[in-house]
Amino acid sequence: MQFNSEQRLDDGTLEREFTLGEIHGILWTPGSASAPTPLILLGHPGGLQKMHPRLAARARHTVADGFAAATIELPGSGDRPRSAVTDQARADLRRALQAGEPVTDEIVERLILPLIEQAVPEWRAALDALLALPEIGGPVGYSGGVIALGLRLAVVEPRICAARLFAGSFVPRSMFGEARQVTIPLQVLLQWDDEGNDRQLALDLFDAFGSKEKALHANMGGHTGVPASEADEGSRFFARHLK
Amino acid sequence: MQFNSEQRLDDGTLEREFTLGEIHGILWTPGSASAPTPLILLGHPGGLQKMHPRLAARARHTVADGFAAATIELPGSGDRPRSAVTDQARADLRRALQAGEPVTDEIVERLILPLIEQAVPEWRAALDALLALPEIGGPVGYSGGVIALGLRLAVVEPRICAARLFAGSFVPRSMFGEARQVTIPLQVLLQWDDEGNDRQLALDLFDAFGSKEKALHANMGGHTGVPASEADEGSRFFARHLK
Repeated sequence: MQFNSEQRLDDGTLEREFTLGEIHGILWTPGSASAPTPLILLGHPGGLQKMHPRLAARARHTVADGFAAATIELPGSGDRPRSAVTDQARADLRRALQAGEPVTDEIVERLILPLIEQAVPEWRAALDALLALPEIGGPVGYSGGVIALGLRLAVVEPRICAARLFAGSFVPRSMFGEARQVTIPLQVLLQWDDEGNDRQLALDLFDAFGSKEKALHANMGGHTGVPASEADEGSRFFARHLK
Repeated sequence: MQFNSEQRLDDGTLEREFTLGEIHGILWTPGSASAPTPLILLGHPGGLQKMHPRLAARARHTVADGFAAATIELPGSGDRPRSAVTDQARADLRRALQAGEPVTDEIVERLILPLIEQAVPEWRAALDALLALPEIGGPVGYSGGVIALGLRLAVVEPRICAARLFAGSFVPRSMFGEARQVTIPLQVLLQWDDEGNDRQLALDLFDAFGSKEKALHANMGGHTGVPASEADEGSRFFARHLK
């Protein structure tokens, strides 16, 4: 892990860009020295540069709550080599949605499975590197989408102790068996009229999660319309489970 | 409205029992004099005496947040004359649930419609009397079940400005048209594995509500398993909308 640049945000948060092998990432930590903080991994749909304003806003909120926040670029996004399989699946998904046709599991599997199979070891390697920094302790939370990535990480990565998953992207039904193996506390966010998602699939996935403590927060509006009050609810969720 | 008794709870909250005509009610207000407070009506399944410990706990929390809280007995419950129609419908509902049979809309209509047709004018009369007290101002919120009663009140009673409805009881599908007329901010609480409720009906009802600002909070567990953290979320919901 190599730090390439750092800047102070207006609230004092320290934002550092890093590379881990070929992969670009960002780490946000409190502006002044503090005891090692728990870490929240910020999930996102890919494209760190384009997503930066929204990620930085989430990170600032997270750091103000006493956590470190970090994320890395997804396979096939940003400056990483594109995947013909994923690009084709994304085009097929878009075509089905625009035509008002059902999104088949076959499309969703082509879109999601290769992506998370590549991403999961990368996020775990990032976790190794981040937790080796003196300013970061445990435990670790996962917050955001891609929900299938959060799901898989919650199953295979024991250092992740709580997750707040954004049900804003498709999950292959073949992963529902994995969802039953998730036992950490969960909050699932659902936008009720998300134009690019399947509400019933999200409800079925919520039902499938094995966690005893799980809550679904469904709010009105489309994909990007999550109400501001949910940011505070996220703070309280992670404070309950990571502190 | 006639006050019959009063007592101080251990946190200083003033609890007063009243009658309004023949109907028994309870009012909780801050222990020390304050500016007129907004009012939250506490919905419940009937049986004030049996429900008293839980109602008083909710009321204490509500008063600590700077509201007054009040409730009245439901028709056919507590010491009020029983209704043969409602008793029969309740027995039919229980039989269907125990047999694992679908609860028909016909049963739900017999159970719910006469109950709320009688209750709604009573709750509105209670509102008249409560808002005439110098210590109580507006606006008014509704919190709890019976969800069909909260729904009807949200439609017909303009003094109710926000509602946090507990989806723990059946609603006739014939009321879904009314649900579309509800426009106040809503939070709907759903217990995912509520043994005496229909999850899909609750999700469909949530979908039907016309409010632009509505959120569904679904939590694990049965009817009485609402997690403690939801009480604080209720505080914040009413603080956002009634203050």
